[in-house]
Amino acid sequence: MSRGQASPADPAAGTERYARASLSYLADPGDPVLGTLLESVSPDGVLAIIVSGDRNPAWSLAPALAGSDGTAAAGLAAVGRAVERWRARLGELPPAARLAAWERTGYRLVCPGEAEWPTQLDDLGAARPVVLWLRGDADLRFACLRSVSVVGSRAATAYGTHVGTELAADLAGQGWTVISGGAYGIDASAHRGALAASGCTVGVLASGLTFGYPKGHAELFAEIECTGVMVSECPPERAPTRPGFLVRNRVIAALSRGTVVVEAALRSGAINTARHAAELNRPAMAVPGPVTSEQSAGCHELIRDCGATCVTGARDVIEMVTPLGDATPAPAREPAIPATSLDPVTASVLAAVTRRTGRGPATIATLAGVDLDTALRCLGLLAAAGHVERCEQGWRARRAG
Amino acid sequence: MSRGQASPADPAAGTERYARASLSYLADPGDPVLGTLLESVSPDGVLAIIVSGDRNPAWSLAPALAGSDGTAAAGLAAVGRAVERWRARLGELPPAARLAAWERTGYRLVCPGEAEWPTQLDDLGAARPVVLWLRGDADLRFACLRSVSVVGSRAATAYGTHVGTELAADLAGQGWTVISGGAYGIDASAHRGALAASGCTVGVLASGLTFGYPKGHAELFAEIECTGVMVSECPPERAPTRPGFLVRNRVIAALSRGTVVVEAALRSGAINTARHAAELNRPAMAVPGPVTSEQSAGCHELIRDCGATCVTGARDVIEMVTPLGDATPAPAREPAIPATSLDPVTASVLAAVTRRTGRGPATIATLAGVDLDTALRCLGLLAAAGHVERCEQGWRARRAG
Repeated sequence: MSRGQASPADPAAGTERYARASLSYLADPGDPVLGTLLESVSPDGVLAIIVSGDRNPAWSLAPALAGSDGTAAAGLAAVGRAVERWRARLGELPPAARLAAWERTGYRLVCPGEAEWPTQLDDLGAARPVVLWLRGDADLRFACLRSVSVVGSRAATAYGTHVGTELAADLAGQGWTVISGGAYGIDASAHRGALAASGCTVGVLASGLTFGYPKGHAELFAEIECTGVMVSECPPERAPTRPGFLVRNRVIAALSRGTVVVEAALRSGAINTARHAAELNRPAMAVPGPVTSEQSAGCHELIRDCGATCVTGARDVIEMVTPLGDATPAPAREPAIPATSLDPVTASVLAAVTRRTGRGPATIATLAGVDLDTALRCLGLLAAAGHVERCEQGWRARRAG
Repeated sequence: MSRGQASPADPAAGTERYARASLSYLADPGDPVLGTLLESVSPDGVLAIIVSGDRNPAWSLAPALAGSDGTAAAGLAAVGRAVERWRARLGELPPAARLAAWERTGYRLVCPGEAEWPTQLDDLGAARPVVLWLRGDADLRFACLRSVSVVGSRAATAYGTHVGTELAADLAGQGWTVISGGAYGIDASAHRGALAASGCTVGVLASGLTFGYPKGHAELFAEIECTGVMVSECPPERAPTRPGFLVRNRVIAALSRGTVVVEAALRSGAINTARHAAELNRPAMAVPGPVTSEQSAGCHELIRDCGATCVTGARDVIEMVTPLGDATPAPAREPAIPATSLDPVTASVLAAVTRRTGRGPATIATLAGVDLDTALRCLGLLAAAGHVERCEQGWRARRAG
C-alpha cells in the first residue's frame, strides 16, 4: 500500500520524520525528558543539539524551555544529562540511506499528525511516543477506532488461555479490533482468537519489529501482519529491555477504548496496563477466575481495590467501551469513516455487501473483483469502521441509525 | 441450659409468648399483614381476634390501626382476608400442653425483647420474625455478635464446595460464627467447614426444626446443635414451602454482619440473600469463579451490577464486616459481652485461659473443672464474643485495646 509519505531518509535529511526516526534510535521509549522537550522544541532542533556536540546543551535549549513552564528551568540539569546519554548512542544511528531501506522492506514510520497516527495516543501528553514503527496490512488509526486491549500474564493457565481466545474471537466477530502485546500466554491467546475469527489484531512489541521478541512468536507476528498490524516505538533491530515492557504498556492502554485483563498474578505487568487505562479515563476491566488460582489474584485485586469492572465475556466488555451506555454490539450510528473516504478497493468490497441477508466472503470477493484474502482484509477494516457486520450468511451492511 | 423463661403453655395461656408461638402456627413466616398488625396490636390481641370468630375482624382492629399510620385504614380489607386465612388454620394449633412439651424436649422459643433475641433482627421492621424456634447449645444472640452468612447454590461445583468449606473454616478459626441455610451444596459446606474448625455455626431452616428439611442433613443438623444453634420461624413439625425459602433468606441476612455468596447461578436464592443484606446496609459480598461456570454467573452479576464486593478469602470478608475499617482479625477493642455477664461455667473456662502463650483445650477443661466438650463449646462462644482467640498452643485470652 503506497502511502505517499516522505521517507525518513529523504536527501533533505532535516525533515521532522527523519529527526523523529533518529530520536527513536537515541532515546528509550517514553523518555520523560525527551517528551517534555518535544512539547517546546522541534524534533529537528533536539536532534541538532545532540549532533552538535555542544558541551552545554541545556543552555542552547534554555530559551525554548523558558517559554514552556516554570519547572523547565529547574530541569535544565536533567536535560543536560539526557542529551549526554542520547549523544553516547550516536554511533548506533544508521545513515539516512539505511532508514530509507526500512520503508522499502515493508516498514512504515508514522509520526504524530500524519494520516495513520492514532490521535488517541496524544492523550499520553509528554509520554506520547516520539514515532511508531509499523508493519502489516491494516491501517493503524483505522484498526484502532473500535478496539479493545486484551492482556494478561505469560504464565497463563488453561482456563486463562481458553477465556482469552474466546473473548478475543467474540470481540473480533463483532467487528472489534483486539490489541495486545506479543508475549506467550494471554497476549498470544488474544491474537490467536481474533485471527481465528478473521478479525483485525494489533501487536504492540517492547522490542523492535525485526528483533521480534519473543522469537518463538515470529510466525504469529507474521500472521498478524497479514490482516492487522505490528507496532513498536523502537527501531526495528532494537532488543527489548526489562523496563521497556512496562513503558510499552501505556501504548497498549492508550490505543484502545478499554483494557481487559484476562489473567494476572499480583504484580503482573498486565495490572500496570489496566492502571494506565484507568489513568487515561478508559475502562479498566478484569475477568474473574477461581480464587484458588494465583493467576487470577491480580484480576480480583483490580476488581476489589482498583475499581476495575468485573467482565465475564465480550458482551460485558462491549457494553463498557461503547459510548453513551449503548449496549448493542453495533454502537456507532454513523460509520467512523465515511464511505466516500474509503480507498477504491475497500469501497468496491463495501459495494458488494448487501444490507438485509448478507453474503459469503467468496461471493463478495467475486463481485468486488478482488481475491479472497483482499476481500477478508477489507471486510475486517469495514467492520472496524462500522460499515459491515457478521451475520449467518457471512457479512452484511450495517443499517445507519 | 435453663433459661428461666415462662413456657408458652403456662396455665395462664394469655401470655405474649403463648400468643407468638400460636401465631407461628397460624401465619406464614414474614406475613406482611401480621408484621404490620404487630406494630400496633399486641400478639395476644391479634390471637384473640382470630380465635373470637368475629366476622368483621378488621373493625375490631380498626381503633388500634387508626393510630399507626394513614395507610392502615386502606389495608383493612387485607387485614380481614388475612384473619380469615389464619382462622382457617386454627385446627393446626396444638393445645397449650403440647407447646410446653416442645420446650421440655430441647426446643427454645425466643421472642423479641427476650435475652436470647438477636436485636439486629429488629432491623427487618414489619418483616421481623414473630418468634424464633431454636435448638442447640449456643446462645443465638451471643453466637451472632461476630457472624458472617456464607450462602450459595445447592448445585455447587467441586470448586464451590472447596471454597465454601475453606472460607467457613478460616472464619471460624478466627472466632467468627458462620450462618447459613440447611441446603445441600454451599450451605452444607459452610457448616462443615466451621464445624471442622471447632467453630460456632448457625443453621436457619425454612422448615420447622423437627421436620428438618432436607431430611438427608439430619446428622449435620444434630452436629450443628452440639456447638451451635438451629433456627426456624416455623413450628417444629412444619414442612417447608417454596416461597418459604426466599422469606427465610431475610433472617440469614439480618442475623449476620454481612453475607458472602460463594457460588450462585443467575436467579439463585443466594442472590436474594445478598440483596437482603444490601437492603439492610450490611456488606454483600461474592466470591468470583471461572467465567465458564454457570454456578459463578450469579456471583459475577452481583459484583458487576449490584455493588457486591469481590472477596477471595476470609481476610477480605473480615475486612468488610469489621467496623471502622479495622482490618485486623480481632476487631472489637472491648469484648462484645463483658466478662462479668458470663454464666459461671463460661466464666470458669475464661479464667483458665492465659494471656500470653495460650493453652490447649484439654488443659483448659481440666483447670476449669469441666469436660472437654463443654470447654470447646465455651471457647467458641468466648471467641465469638471477643474474649479469646486461637493461637499455636490452642487458645489464649485477647488483649483489650
